[in-house]
Amino acid sequence: MSKVGIVSYGLTKFSKDDSKIESVLLQSTKKLFDASPNLSRNDIDAVLVSTNNNSKYLSAVLSEMSGIEPKIAHSVESLCNSGTNAIVSAYSYISAGLADVVLVCGAERYDSPGQILEWDNSRGEFKHPIFWASIFTKAYKREFSITDDDLAIVPVKNHKQSKNNPNALSEKTYSLDEVINSKKLTDDLRLHDCSRPCTGGASILLASEHACKKYTDTPIWISGIGQKTTSAGFTKNITFSSMESSRIAATSAFQMSKRSISDVDVAEVHDAFSVCEPMALESLGFTDKGKGMDLIKELHTTDNFKINPRGGLIGAGHPLGATGIAQTIEITQQLQSSADKRQVSNAKIGLIHNMSAASTSSTVLVLER
Amino acid sequence: MSKVGIVSYGLTKFSKDDSKIESVLLQSTKKLFDASPNLSRNDIDAVLVSTNNNSKYLSAVLSEMSGIEPKIAHSVESLCNSGTNAIVSAYSYISAGLADVVLVCGAERYDSPGQILEWDNSRGEFKHPIFWASIFTKAYKREFSITDDDLAIVPVKNHKQSKNNPNALSEKTYSLDEVINSKKLTDDLRLHDCSRPCTGGASILLASEHACKKYTDTPIWISGIGQKTTSAGFTKNITFSSMESSRIAATSAFQMSKRSISDVDVAEVHDAFSVCEPMALESLGFTDKGKGMDLIKELHTTDNFKINPRGGLIGAGHPLGATGIAQTIEITQQLQSSADKRQVSNAKIGLIHNMSAASTSSTVLVLER
Repeated sequence: MSKVGIVSYGLTKFSKDDSKIESVLLQSTKKLFDASPNLSRNDIDAVLVSTNNNSKYLSAVLSEMSGIEPKIAHSVESLCNSGTNAIVSAYSYISAGLADVVLVCGAERYDSPGQILEWDNSRGEFKHPIFWASIFTKAYKREFSITDDDLAIVPVKNHKQSKNNPNALSEKTYSLDEVINSKKLTDDLRLHDCSRPCTGGASILLASEHACKKYTDTPIWISGIGQKTTSAGFTKNITFSSMESSRIAATSAFQMSKRSISDVDVAEVHDAFSVCEPMALESLGFTDKGKGMDLIKELHTTDNFKINPRGGLIGAGHPLGATGIAQTIEITQQLQSSADKRQVSNAKIGLIHNMSAASTSSTVLVLER
Repeated sequence: MSKVGIVSYGLTKFSKDDSKIESVLLQSTKKLFDASPNLSRNDIDAVLVSTNNNSKYLSAVLSEMSGIEPKIAHSVESLCNSGTNAIVSAYSYISAGLADVVLVCGAERYDSPGQILEWDNSRGEFKHPIFWASIFTKAYKREFSITDDDLAIVPVKNHKQSKNNPNALSEKTYSLDEVINSKKLTDDLRLHDCSRPCTGGASILLASEHACKKYTDTPIWISGIGQKTTSAGFTKNITFSSMESSRIAATSAFQMSKRSISDVDVAEVHDAFSVCEPMALESLGFTDKGKGMDLIKELHTTDNFKINPRGGLIGAGHPLGATGIAQTIEITQQLQSSADKRQVSNAKIGLIHNMSAASTSSTVLVLER
């Protein structure tokens, strides 16, 4: 079976724009075409759209607007990890021999209906995901003797890093005091602990090994894929202080890539809320249980951008359907040594961690140059 | 690469029920499990949901309700051919080695938002697809000297055939006069020329060649896949009297399967409206341009169920996201000689034609026993 490589990408700035979803899709796709001088519309065998938007037939709409007449065209939805699900679907079309070149485009508006999972009645009075983030935070703090002051380092670090990301929603940095004194949403959650929904698009081009050559001398290979859905409702989680689906997905991804966590030079992890970053680092295996904040403090103190170089979801913003693709683009740039001020030195192997709905499902990708 | 087989299925009755989408998904999946004594929940690597419903995370929801914890789980949407797109996606996950066993479940409610493509402004005053069906009908009648009386044979035939389909929405047969005298919707379209949106679910289980053996002695193999999207808006069609995307998809599917149209013993074609059946038969290659009604009349007169044995969309009903899967189940039953009164004798090779939005995109599958 063919290896699958990432050969081009395009990103919009993440914003609070009121653009139509079709415009957002088109905008990042135009940027991808601008960055791909050897790419012809006729090369593209499949167009996949990743979104939680309620508009239908968006892959056909994007195709018509872009002048593409693909074989395969459909939308993919799985809440916040729609983006990596679409990338894995593209991988499988290529690997199965049904496509040589696939365009994957994720887009969302700030008012995405994917922010609320109506089906999960366990959310109680809170409609927004702060219902599960609060319980995760309370459980994590209690189990590992972590304080609100500790967790506040996550947004401080990630907003600092997003200052070097020209497409980030955040254009400000925050002090520890500013995070701690930001609006209290629940007993365990402050405003600056939350990633913010926004409008944004991210397009990425995948190609089979032989097709890669036409577009770039430095394809980035998808060497590991791991996915797991443990439930849909968050109360079915076996624990609220770690991410079981992420642990399983990481194990599978490393098995497939024949790599281990110690090989990873740079990673995007799904910091939907402050507590998610240390929990993810522990569940992925970067550090032991309860030690995630120690690692984050060390990285922050030494200005090491290894984790969430583009600022994570907290710094970059969280356009649901685009997030997993934007994460993958960041790791691609890192491995191509084109991440400018965000560059992690000599990054050869990267990891993407993208999850949904209180980590009831997770995708982990391993990328290599 | 592994061959991919269909090893089990479950269908709900198509109805005007007000059931929640989650209930519809669960109902057909339960029927699939009831029909699969050797299937364990743990066997299932991926759960794909095909729907136009606006609810999110339905693959995870269905998984939790069914006791499945899959690796891969997401929804697939492409209006009326969502179902076959999801089947092709499942095929690719298996063929790429990312999954061995995949559950694909299509479901829709009678009030599906997929009935109207808001983006296509060319629909004019008619929101419902009757806008393009009217123009198709006018163009087809004019070009090939076909009359309304000719076209009325399609619903007469298909309602007759659906009488033998226990899951069909239609429980009545109609005379030519009843079709011709049914409510006039436009100059070229009567009520009985239209398939009706309804509530329904269709679940199907795909497996790799080695996994097939566990579930059935008579797997049905997917030997040909063809897909094409030419546009999203219907006015971009190069003609209104044939289906270009269907022609291209059929050519690809036959190329992959190394079969030709003359090998096909039984077929489901996408008769969203009366005119679609002769047009599809011509574009797929069953007969020459303008000769589709001659073939349909011959089949009708001789009670030959070769085309749309379950009654097509007009007779069986059209729950958008379930339709392509229900079509595939029908051909599976035909090739397994388990289609009861609908059985086409000695059917060895079958074809599925599933399209969206005025045939701006089409999927064609070739199945073999």
